[in-house]
Amino acid sequence: MGPHPAVAAIRLAVRRVLHDVLSDQAARGCAAQTVSANGAPVAASAPSPTPTVPATREAARPPLVLVACSGGADSMALASALAFEAPKLGIRAGGITVDHGLQPGSDDRAADVVARLTALRLDPVESVAVDVGRDGGPEAAARDARYAALDAAAERHGAAAVLLGHTRDDQAETVLLGLARGSGIRSLSGMAAVSPGRGAAARYRRPFLHLDRQTARKACLVQSLPVWDDPHNADPTYTRSRLRHEGLPALEKALGKGVVEALARTAQLSRDDADALDDWAARAEASVRDESGRLECAGLYALPSAVRRRILRRAAIEAGAPAGSLFARHIEEMDRLITGWRGQGAINLPGRVEAQRQGGRLVIRQG
Amino acid sequence: MGPHPAVAAIRLAVRRVLHDVLSDQAARGCAAQTVSANGAPVAASAPSPTPTVPATREAARPPLVLVACSGGADSMALASALAFEAPKLGIRAGGITVDHGLQPGSDDRAADVVARLTALRLDPVESVAVDVGRDGGPEAAARDARYAALDAAAERHGAAAVLLGHTRDDQAETVLLGLARGSGIRSLSGMAAVSPGRGAAARYRRPFLHLDRQTARKACLVQSLPVWDDPHNADPTYTRSRLRHEGLPALEKALGKGVVEALARTAQLSRDDADALDDWAARAEASVRDESGRLECAGLYALPSAVRRRILRRAAIEAGAPAGSLFARHIEEMDRLITGWRGQGAINLPGRVEAQRQGGRLVIRQG
Repeated sequence: MGPHPAVAAIRLAVRRVLHDVLSDQAARGCAAQTVSANGAPVAASAPSPTPTVPATREAARPPLVLVACSGGADSMALASALAFEAPKLGIRAGGITVDHGLQPGSDDRAADVVARLTALRLDPVESVAVDVGRDGGPEAAARDARYAALDAAAERHGAAAVLLGHTRDDQAETVLLGLARGSGIRSLSGMAAVSPGRGAAARYRRPFLHLDRQTARKACLVQSLPVWDDPHNADPTYTRSRLRHEGLPALEKALGKGVVEALARTAQLSRDDADALDDWAARAEASVRDESGRLECAGLYALPSAVRRRILRRAAIEAGAPAGSLFARHIEEMDRLITGWRGQGAINLPGRVEAQRQGGRLVIRQG
Repeated sequence: MGPHPAVAAIRLAVRRVLHDVLSDQAARGCAAQTVSANGAPVAASAPSPTPTVPATREAARPPLVLVACSGGADSMALASALAFEAPKLGIRAGGITVDHGLQPGSDDRAADVVARLTALRLDPVESVAVDVGRDGGPEAAARDARYAALDAAAERHGAAAVLLGHTRDDQAETVLLGLARGSGIRSLSGMAAVSPGRGAAARYRRPFLHLDRQTARKACLVQSLPVWDDPHNADPTYTRSRLRHEGLPALEKALGKGVVEALARTAQLSRDDADALDDWAARAEASVRDESGRLECAGLYALPSAVRRRILRRAAIEAGAPAGSLFARHIEEMDRLITGWRGQGAINLPGRVEAQRQGGRLVIRQG
């Protein structure tokens, strides 16, 4: 008799990602070991050092994959699947829990998570305490502190990847949060299956992005893994929590049960579309700059507005406008200098950046 | 003292659209009259006949703009603004109400709407009874019947445009309905400000797409216009009604008041992006067909997936797959013939269309 379907599902998801990690390492030629078609470990032909780990150490030891674990059902399920699959592929499995210090007793809880991860035979296992600032609101500040700690842990341990327990439900929530910004399809594209960390192109991997939260929860239950429900997740002062407990259920009630899946699919399609348009804009930009590098209004005018707006956005950021403060209305106002020109003056953008039309050129600079 | 701000807003929105109608007519050279910069009517230089209206009649009379009016607040506000603005631009204003025959007494109500439109001095005013079928569910069937009746009325009266009362709130609902399909950014792009009708490229215009429902309602109130609340709008058996009364309010509660505006902006940005990518796909398609017109897998493989998927979708529709039955998963399966080729057989698509890979070509045909 095989494992419970939920356990089989989480393991399969992790196995796929571990294979990807190994192929990426082999492709970079810096993996200590990789796996041949029949599953046997194979020495990589040309190991080369990463910036933080001496080649000798890396060559001597199998690659390490860390799981970021809060003790909640999603990341505990992920930790259990990593603990099961990693040894079969010649990978070391470790775990990190981040103590955000936002609640009394959070250090005890972190110690608890360390004990649980150790019980799963992960090694190394570490709890990292962080100071959460205030920039960008409580959720963004906690996230920034968490990723900085995970980046540091990955570097310290020379990890090939850090697995994150985000599920399809988290993805759906992220898409709705992006939708609320109304800033276009890039903000609808949610979280990537693979995303970069500090100094590493593909540090973070999200094996559960196509699994639902219920499967992760079930997998913990049938494996008798204790899980901890973060009270923040039910705290209505957090936007994501309101979305999870009120917004999304109401939307499902109105639109039907497939909403979460539809949102996750929207994320993937939007991401591909946004990537393609960004590429187009990067190529088109070169064609609309004059010999001194200034943007020519006539050339911009001739482009599709989707491409033109992306070029304008890039130019504003290049001139010093902070990306996070640059809204759709700013880009629209810049766009009117091209498409609705009637002699208007300079327009002000965030970060003391000014855009104005001068002699058929668009001049964008910091004041 | 000028009009109430809500009345000023609806009139401005309609005035802008009427100007667009006149410029389009002038550009096509088929307007009986257009308006010069100072507002005086000017005879068009080269009137040409439309298929349904003799040139002599068209040349003799000022252009006609119809409003589609259910008697609800949005379309009554629209009718009142059209009645006010059209004469100032030398445009005739008429109104059509569609009797869907779905409720007892709907004919009386239609007669009532005719009386109200006539009281606004619209002319011609007409009630059109339709038979609502069952194809695609009750909402889609009613919509199909309605647009067929409006197309017929526009042709019968030789109307230059038909105005529709959709507001920003309707647009937000439409975006969420598209999101629930999860079929990509085209379905997030909501309703267009200008859309074609049967045999006419720019028949339908939506002047209120950037106005909120509250403004239309207020404009009716301050003008003492009686409005009729369609019980369908509050009937929870309709998806849109559930969305309006439960889904969207819950989403606003979770995400904040700007959700409707953000959704409407998402529609516009998605539409521009989808248009640009469709253009790209149309251009790229020619480059990946061999001399006998078959799609070359190597060429498709080299394209960004956003572009490749659009080409595959177009090819499936061209081969006979009904667009409405072609889902993201079908396109994904076709895509795997290109990007995940491991000798798989023919795949079945809706409309008895088959796609298979043969000698490096993708063969898509109806069985």
